[in-house]
Amino acid sequence: MNYPGKIKKEFKRQVSHSNRGMDLEELINQSNNFYLEENIAVIYKKPTPITIVDASFDSHGRVITKAYFKEPSTLDYNGLYKGKYIDFDAKSTQNKTSFPLSNLHDHQYNHMKSIIEHGGITFLIISMNSNYYLLDGKDIIDFVNSNDRKSIPFSYIEEKGYIIDKKIRPRLDYIKVIDKIYFQGD
Amino acid sequence: MNYPGKIKKEFKRQVSHSNRGMDLEELINQSNNFYLEENIAVIYKKPTPITIVDASFDSHGRVITKAYFKEPSTLDYNGLYKGKYIDFDAKSTQNKTSFPLSNLHDHQYNHMKSIIEHGGITFLIISMNSNYYLLDGKDIIDFVNSNDRKSIPFSYIEEKGYIIDKKIRPRLDYIKVIDKIYFQGD
Repeated sequence: MNYPGKIKKEFKRQVSHSNRGMDLEELINQSNNFYLEENIAVIYKKPTPITIVDASFDSHGRVITKAYFKEPSTLDYNGLYKGKYIDFDAKSTQNKTSFPLSNLHDHQYNHMKSIIEHGGITFLIISMNSNYYLLDGKDIIDFVNSNDRKSIPFSYIEEKGYIIDKKIRPRLDYIKVIDKIYFQGD
Repeated sequence: MNYPGKIKKEFKRQVSHSNRGMDLEELINQSNNFYLEENIAVIYKKPTPITIVDASFDSHGRVITKAYFKEPSTLDYNGLYKGKYIDFDAKSTQNKTSFPLSNLHDHQYNHMKSIIEHGGITFLIISMNSNYYLLDGKDIIDFVNSNDRKSIPFSYIEEKGYIIDKKIRPRLDYIKVIDKIYFQGD
């Protein structure tokens, strides 16, 4: 995970909320707000994990004066939809031919395996080649189990993944894809 | 939520891992580690939400040099057990006769209502009078709906709540109580 990028995003968000150049995290956060407002799903981004070294008080209250970023052990987003546990992450790549698996840490990969084992829904939202794909955790695990490759070819993502509609509200209607994959026949 | 306490806890944890005086958060974290290691449940504490104001780089890498604590909109712990979404918080009170509802923020209370509505399991673990009680979200909402009181009498917690066993592994076997309340007959 690109932490310097994360810091930059924090700053950017304070400056501009315009649509152009809106990054994947912001698109998902806005979609989650929509799902929450419309009472469709209860899904939040987890705060970025940090280790606090020093803290004190200033005129605004308690202030952290020194802290480091920690590598997350889980995925960034989780929550509840139609009684099901949902757990996913958002990854972007500029690579046009394959998605480098280095984007997914080992403990995140193991976390996805655990979620499936315990009956939850887990996936990645991958921004690649100007589209947003939902790739089910089972397809990621299948790929890793049957390949020595360090990246998932784009053709596999096109074949197994689902394109997520870009709209105004919600920005990225990934719940529609979840309905299709996991709730067909409900 | 007591944020100065949170900072102190961060420091304390670096200093000592001994059992004596172990606080509720630490007991739950250790229990969650046990459930994870034994492949029983996948439940994590969410990182404390902060707003980063300034960040830079030092010899250890990226360092946050100014950040403030944000009030959380959700509960501290969530995860997955037997295919069910689990969402809860841990609250301690020194009060012997009642649990002050000021411990539970309005948005946390509304979050609990949402979780129930969408088919999840939500509760509080309350440390009070030398015991740990699991009080189901529905009982909390029932109480608020039928009372003008600003605190839940201890007698109500004793009547509706479940005492959580204190053990070595896990420290607080709250999953056993979840089995009893939500999975009876499974």
